[in-house]
Amino acid sequence: MKNKQFLLKSRPVGKPSRDNWDYVENEIPELSDKQVLIKVAYISLDPAMRGWMNDGKSYIEPVQLGAVMRAGTVGQVIKSTDPSFAEGDYVYGHCGVQQYAAVSTQGLHKIDPALAPLERYLGVLGMPGMTAYFGLLETGLPKAGETVVVSGAAGAVGTVVGQIAKIKGCKVIGIAGGADKCAYLINELGFDGAIDYKSENIKKSLKTLCPKGVDVYFDNVGGDILDDVLTQIRMKARIVICGAISQYNNTTAVKGPSNYLSLLVNRARMEGIVVFDNAANYGKAATEMATWIAQGKLKVKEHVVKGLDNFPEALMMLFNGENTGKLVLKVDD
Amino acid sequence: MKNKQFLLKSRPVGKPSRDNWDYVENEIPELSDKQVLIKVAYISLDPAMRGWMNDGKSYIEPVQLGAVMRAGTVGQVIKSTDPSFAEGDYVYGHCGVQQYAAVSTQGLHKIDPALAPLERYLGVLGMPGMTAYFGLLETGLPKAGETVVVSGAAGAVGTVVGQIAKIKGCKVIGIAGGADKCAYLINELGFDGAIDYKSENIKKSLKTLCPKGVDVYFDNVGGDILDDVLTQIRMKARIVICGAISQYNNTTAVKGPSNYLSLLVNRARMEGIVVFDNAANYGKAATEMATWIAQGKLKVKEHVVKGLDNFPEALMMLFNGENTGKLVLKVDD
Repeated sequence: MKNKQFLLKSRPVGKPSRDNWDYVENEIPELSDKQVLIKVAYISLDPAMRGWMNDGKSYIEPVQLGAVMRAGTVGQVIKSTDPSFAEGDYVYGHCGVQQYAAVSTQGLHKIDPALAPLERYLGVLGMPGMTAYFGLLETGLPKAGETVVVSGAAGAVGTVVGQIAKIKGCKVIGIAGGADKCAYLINELGFDGAIDYKSENIKKSLKTLCPKGVDVYFDNVGGDILDDVLTQIRMKARIVICGAISQYNNTTAVKGPSNYLSLLVNRARMEGIVVFDNAANYGKAATEMATWIAQGKLKVKEHVVKGLDNFPEALMMLFNGENTGKLVLKVDD
Repeated sequence: MKNKQFLLKSRPVGKPSRDNWDYVENEIPELSDKQVLIKVAYISLDPAMRGWMNDGKSYIEPVQLGAVMRAGTVGQVIKSTDPSFAEGDYVYGHCGVQQYAAVSTQGLHKIDPALAPLERYLGVLGMPGMTAYFGLLETGLPKAGETVVVSGAAGAVGTVVGQIAKIKGCKVIGIAGGADKCAYLINELGFDGAIDYKSENIKKSLKTLCPKGVDVYFDNVGGDILDDVLTQIRMKARIVICGAISQYNNTTAVKGPSNYLSLLVNRARMEGIVVFDNAANYGKAATEMATWIAQGKLKVKEHVVKGLDNFPEALMMLFNGENTGKLVLKVDD
């Protein structure tokens, strides 16, 4: 039994490609004390992974060259030296882009495959869901009747942000790429409107769809879209900075929002979030979201790509806007 | 008796100059009901005036072409058709860049020249003081022991921000242009440090002077300095966007803060303020600041230029960084 792994070989300049990784086979390591051997089932593909490939200070250490690429995963315990984890248990953790991981049990959380399919624990019941839940509710502070706009709206975080905003009684407009995604947001998820950034003038469409202006903007993309929304915010608007996927593969400086002085004119606020800060309350949020799912108020969609071998290309789907819903890699073909 | 006035003749492209105004003499208008005739004594010169000269939506209407240039003023009532304002009363209001103004009494506030020199009501006891007070205390939310950085530190707002932050027990670093201003901040106003943006590497100096990072940044200047400070903020930092004087004379787009994703990494906030929102509480703030002045904790400085004729050049002193403290124009030579 060997372990196929993707190791970070070089730091990408611009878009990452297969050349940035070594795809290797190694022995499965022996366990030390309080460890488990995990057979990885699903690997989460997230925009943040692009940032982890860069050197330099961020909210988390960069992946070291030669190390297994970091990734959130779900998998099954197949060996254990920690009595609190038994063979057969399913767990969430950061086990990396590989088939098997020998890891300390400290960062692992048990999950129940009877309650939800495994891959859902990487989506709405995992980091993207928590990011949406806490970012919208605790930083966006939406009030019933307000207008909420979300970019990257068809992605893992955006789909949840928009639906929670609807549950809270807001008018919700999503910004996404392509007519299919826009139709999905409106027809399947109940958004009040959607803007196709590939074919529409965003500023103009925002004016039409949000005639009173934007109260909450949940930003996953940065760049020109952030600047467009800044021109349409209302007094005391809240902009949640969750990510800036349009900027992650830049080879030049990040495009700062030229219209940031709209914050001044409108006494508005722009605030950054990192999901890990809410770790103590994940359980409460997961329970509430599971209830909404059971009630049919929160619809979830995972976009599954099969085969560990396809990791580099699957990751690029995020940056090319090719996924709808949470993108995950199923390790087995 | 004629009335000399500066009328807005054209909207400036880049730096305003004398050509953008018509300097005219007109008759002094007759009063209608509930009006007063004001003899203007001092005219406030503020960075915001540059914005008022532009067309387009902002927090306040643009000055119309052909209209008297808007300005905050203090002056004396010399005629009145409103029984609640008597001849001889001193008032604060927006009477514009002219010698005499016939205005409704609605926007006027009586001031007492026995309590403070007239020009002080345009500075620490006026809009700049209120901007500093409410912007720092209600949006910056400084806590004792935290590090507060202010740009435009030797200006009307910056000098007050820094001193209030000191009163609240913070460590205070000012960013200003030139060795004289920096020495003034430290030696006269009690700042803990100062950075001369004309001769120093701001990022490097911030690292030295704020080894723990910046908790509150009160930004009057925007541009590269905002970007430099963004690299040095601490977790949960608050950035108060009060102005962006470095950008007001741009002929190209405003420079957005390229490093705004530092808000995400540090879960920090950037929030705009407009002083008028606090109008209901000006009195309370003025009383508290007057007490600090009397106790010697808050030092004030007005920079007086004499002669209405000199208005265009005096205004430019703001953008050239030639004032220390609150810049005012004394109407009489």
